[in-house]
Amino acid sequence: MKIGIQGTLGSYHHQAADLFFNSEEFILYEYESFKKVAKSVSKSECDFGLMAIENTIAGSILPNYSLVTKYNLQIVGEIYLPIQHQLMALPGTDFDKIEEIRSHPMAILQCDQFLEKYNHFTIRETSDTALTAKKIKSELSRNIAAIASQKAADLYGLEILKRNIQTFHKNFTRFFVLAKETEPTNDFDKASITFATPHKSGSLANVLNEFVYLGINMEKIQSIPIIEKPWQYNFHVDISFETIQQYEELKKRILIKTDNLKILGEYKKNNPYLLKELEYIDLKSNF
Amino acid sequence: MKIGIQGTLGSYHHQAADLFFNSEEFILYEYESFKKVAKSVSKSECDFGLMAIENTIAGSILPNYSLVTKYNLQIVGEIYLPIQHQLMALPGTDFDKIEEIRSHPMAILQCDQFLEKYNHFTIRETSDTALTAKKIKSELSRNIAAIASQKAADLYGLEILKRNIQTFHKNFTRFFVLAKETEPTNDFDKASITFATPHKSGSLANVLNEFVYLGINMEKIQSIPIIEKPWQYNFHVDISFETIQQYEELKKRILIKTDNLKILGEYKKNNPYLLKELEYIDLKSNF
Repeated sequence: MKIGIQGTLGSYHHQAADLFFNSEEFILYEYESFKKVAKSVSKSECDFGLMAIENTIAGSILPNYSLVTKYNLQIVGEIYLPIQHQLMALPGTDFDKIEEIRSHPMAILQCDQFLEKYNHFTIRETSDTALTAKKIKSELSRNIAAIASQKAADLYGLEILKRNIQTFHKNFTRFFVLAKETEPTNDFDKASITFATPHKSGSLANVLNEFVYLGINMEKIQSIPIIEKPWQYNFHVDISFETIQQYEELKKRILIKTDNLKILGEYKKNNPYLLKELEYIDLKSNF
Repeated sequence: MKIGIQGTLGSYHHQAADLFFNSEEFILYEYESFKKVAKSVSKSECDFGLMAIENTIAGSILPNYSLVTKYNLQIVGEIYLPIQHQLMALPGTDFDKIEEIRSHPMAILQCDQFLEKYNHFTIRETSDTALTAKKIKSELSRNIAAIASQKAADLYGLEILKRNIQTFHKNFTRFFVLAKETEPTNDFDKASITFATPHKSGSLANVLNEFVYLGINMEKIQSIPIIEKPWQYNFHVDISFETIQQYEELKKRILIKTDNLKILGEYKKNNPYLLKELEYIDLKSNF
């Protein structure tokens, strides 16, 4: 099984792949952009692609939704990964000797309290957390630390100087698992859909009232301006449900109340075993 | 009047400030991060701050919503700026001689079709479009081009080699104008609010039905996971209305149907004179 990820081995995409396909054998392929991951799946170079779609703090990566539709991909799974940043350097490095910290701007932002506390470091933005770790090792860069994942430290033989330096400890990134074609299945309890609403007052409320009527849970809603029609909007909505019947009935009912209804994917809700580990109890969402 | 912007003179924030305060005199102060802009306003170092909040293509910059509440700021205005990227270099440079293009990753992404067409360039990511232009001038960097605004080219004396190289020509960034305190006014027709909904089915639809009942226009909705309560959500909602009475009635009605209702700001809808210039006719949004 071939799986395409954005970034370098040891990245958070790599961790997400390990979690999602944990009992299966797979080979990872590194791509330098989300677009190239999407292309690789659409050309069947990879069986699946892993793509970050949103983060608890930063929000959605909207261009990635466009890639799903542009390359005719289907969302066949999701995985939530807690983002835990580690500060790492060459083995034997003394934390007090560190002069420069390198990482991706998003990781730097997510560790802002740590970096403000020790504000004597030079901060250098790079394009990839894991690649930064890899380079520190290959170039034997002394007194330079990377912010990256535990996986990156393990893979590239770096020593962790400070653990879990992220500001928010309940920060998750959600990844989509993408495929080219899927066999019809009834083994799903969640769906990602997108639609526009007719240009008249109350049309969104009209659609949401159907969710309520059918007892369908809305897990996400986001209005997206339509690029070619300024001040008109699409919606990205994630829903979960108990039975396929509820979902089929919903599709029938909202088809006539929406424009351009598209199903981006039907999949199993992420088994939150990770979350249990972190002692999360209340996992239900209910608008 | 002192106005704080994120980034360097000549940035898109600078253009946004020019547009919003066009007939007034002001001095711009450069800050290296959104956080520092927010801090400067909260400490009264600046009278106003300009802060990008969303882009047609990339979506919302969620951390910036957090800055508004964290620093107790109020949104007192908004401005929509069409993003038009220019490729610029030292005067007299031949386009065919350009070897490297530098810009902020978002600008690079927004010019992806142009960059794919001429794929022999080395692309280098930088932290600031205008600063990149400024450095090309001050360091007299030959055969290197920046992607930045017309304003940056004018300010730093660079020559535009290719105009409007952005992939989507109807790409807007929306900016908030932030202030510390505001005098009560009735001169507004738009508001940004945030709220959670009670943990039971149908509570969001319940709120939206009030909008519909009162004839209030919803211009944006986005669900935001609550960091400390995974799988529970806040909503960011923008609404516009004809009369203050509609708005006051709405606040009363939804107060009992929501949790933690907060008003982030009440302000005048951006006068879309810019849009007229670009021949946009249909400016109404109506869910």
